[in-house]
Amino acid sequence: MENFTFYSPTFFAFGKDTEQQAGDLVKRFGGSKVLIHYGGGSVVRSGLLDRVKASLENAGLAFVELGGVKPNPRSGLVYEGIELCKKENVDFILAVGGGSTIDSSKAIAAGCVYDGDFWDFYCGKRIEEALPIGTILTIAAAGSEGSPDSVITKEEGMFKRGASGDAIRPKFSILNPALTQTLPAYQTACGITDIMAHLYERYLTNTKDVEVTDRLIEALLLTMIYEGPRVIENPDDYEARANIMWAGMMAHNHSCGVGRSQDWNSHTMEHELSALYDCAHGAGLAVTMPAMFKYVLDHDVMRFARVAVRVWGCQMDFDDPRKTALAGIEAFKKFLISIGMPVTFGEIGAKKEDIPKLVQSLCYGNGGEGKISGFVTLDEKDCAKIYEMMI
Amino acid sequence: MENFTFYSPTFFAFGKDTEQQAGDLVKRFGGSKVLIHYGGGSVVRSGLLDRVKASLENAGLAFVELGGVKPNPRSGLVYEGIELCKKENVDFILAVGGGSTIDSSKAIAAGCVYDGDFWDFYCGKRIEEALPIGTILTIAAAGSEGSPDSVITKEEGMFKRGASGDAIRPKFSILNPALTQTLPAYQTACGITDIMAHLYERYLTNTKDVEVTDRLIEALLLTMIYEGPRVIENPDDYEARANIMWAGMMAHNHSCGVGRSQDWNSHTMEHELSALYDCAHGAGLAVTMPAMFKYVLDHDVMRFARVAVRVWGCQMDFDDPRKTALAGIEAFKKFLISIGMPVTFGEIGAKKEDIPKLVQSLCYGNGGEGKISGFVTLDEKDCAKIYEMMI
Repeated sequence: MENFTFYSPTFFAFGKDTEQQAGDLVKRFGGSKVLIHYGGGSVVRSGLLDRVKASLENAGLAFVELGGVKPNPRSGLVYEGIELCKKENVDFILAVGGGSTIDSSKAIAAGCVYDGDFWDFYCGKRIEEALPIGTILTIAAAGSEGSPDSVITKEEGMFKRGASGDAIRPKFSILNPALTQTLPAYQTACGITDIMAHLYERYLTNTKDVEVTDRLIEALLLTMIYEGPRVIENPDDYEARANIMWAGMMAHNHSCGVGRSQDWNSHTMEHELSALYDCAHGAGLAVTMPAMFKYVLDHDVMRFARVAVRVWGCQMDFDDPRKTALAGIEAFKKFLISIGMPVTFGEIGAKKEDIPKLVQSLCYGNGGEGKISGFVTLDEKDCAKIYEMMI
Repeated sequence: MENFTFYSPTFFAFGKDTEQQAGDLVKRFGGSKVLIHYGGGSVVRSGLLDRVKASLENAGLAFVELGGVKPNPRSGLVYEGIELCKKENVDFILAVGGGSTIDSSKAIAAGCVYDGDFWDFYCGKRIEEALPIGTILTIAAAGSEGSPDSVITKEEGMFKRGASGDAIRPKFSILNPALTQTLPAYQTACGITDIMAHLYERYLTNTKDVEVTDRLIEALLLTMIYEGPRVIENPDDYEARANIMWAGMMAHNHSCGVGRSQDWNSHTMEHELSALYDCAHGAGLAVTMPAMFKYVLDHDVMRFARVAVRVWGCQMDFDDPRKTALAGIEAFKKFLISIGMPVTFGEIGAKKEDIPKLVQSLCYGNGGEGKISGFVTLDEKDCAKIYEMMI
């Protein structure tokens, strides 16, 4: 195991009706003037936004609003949010929504207390300071409610890039699984896929002797395999929603990924797809992962055999472990199809002829140097072959 | 799943040589005058105490010392520590040792800022305020390095009782697995048993639909089953020590126990044994758990069958699940014996004729009302029978 630090100081309020605690929690964590940041649509229609405002008012808190966050959140709205917060002397940002809204809130929080362009943080500068953030989560997926990470798409060039820093870990996150019961099956399945991707990206490691984190990752994958189909079959299943929601947070607050090298090449390759085609991140990951895993399988057959046996229930082929490893990848692909996810280029509107453009942006865009690094280092040719395997 | 809150704001520095960060971390978390609290023996002999003092000095921090913590830490030293801290205007407590030292430090930290007797907290009063605490852990066992809990023995009457409160969660914990490589096999095995007890106590629940926390607990039990024998065979195995150390923290910071009712009756019954015979807590637990589990087995056969199949690799007997459940308990008992743990009264110096005294203190001592509650509510007769099963 490698040396590491771990710090997850987010307060979680989990369960039914917990959104009523929003006002008290903002006060507890020092806020007095709040920006409520959200997407629109269901947050407004369901009455959630009104309940949140009532909670802030009951706590005697002033607030301004900024809606309009879109999936794959854009830099334009971040600039708008920063300007609004400065003008209104906002001292606390409350994200009401999913990963996109939370990530946009994190970008605003960091940009508000920074003299330069917030995009610097998405080009490698670590975030050391930010306004405090709280979240009210409406979809189990990104894990942003418990993570120090944010992903934003720069509209100029459509670069989708990530930033990190303990300063953007939420002070509190309100997780009410009932808020996710109205999600359409497709969005739910995209969330499930994203959570499983966060687990696989941590599982694919070159660090030896990491049994404890291997086992924790496997535990969360097993949870998703059990609860995923339950919730697709019955969207109203509160208990399944609850198990998925806690698994989604645990999958990405990093407690199961400490002390080990990780992959994240699937995420990096997917970001090009959702940036170009504006597909859901989870859908792009469902297309990317099986192809990626088959391509890098021979780098460590036993790692793929391990997850095949322990998680997918495959029989170990002691004469030919590669067969077991492949069976695990096939089982994952079938699972994704079973919950309604796409697994080919065509299903997300991606085109074979765009592959050179995707590879160019992936390997050279935004300061790239011709390759991406993770479980295996992949150059332009590797990346092109992996995209081709998705057709 | 039940509603819950979860808050684990401890900063963890994990790995080789991390004790060198002690001074910087005390400063980061606001300390200027430190009480270094420790047991003695190995912390002094190994040079660890000197390294810690050097780190504090390098950071320009003043400190006083209080050694002498014993296993099953006593109230007398806590009173002494409180007096010392008040006299010396200490504003930060640094525990260097295992669970006993950390628990004693937590009691001092709470007592320092409380006008009444610190023992009030161990009679049910919640700890709302305390001096900040840091820890440098020297044995993987109690999980106190990441928990809001403390257990102290009151010398007058030898009552061993627990207290809780987020205020006594450590601000930071330094976890260097190398510091545990010199531990004797017996102490190591006691630690392994304590960690497994923290997992079983959470596993034995009456809450339905808790797949995610079931799976996380199973993951950590599987880790202990794999790494435990490795470290007993080769105490110098850094990697096995590292996996156990992180598992020990995760087992007790409560992330795997949220949203579910729990047991803790094994701990409660064991506290009487270590209070009366001064045996190691882990040893007392090894004697208690198999007897307890057999006694309460029929309350939920399928829960015991689940852990038997998923964790102990038992074959499911579909015609008679009770056989599988029992096989799992037997497998656990054999595992405990294999790592050198006692599993009978005689091995820890306990006597059959003391059972009425044990039951009296357990059920009526310190304000008890004739029974203990958890997975199953147990009255005097039940408790006497369980102690008899340990003979």
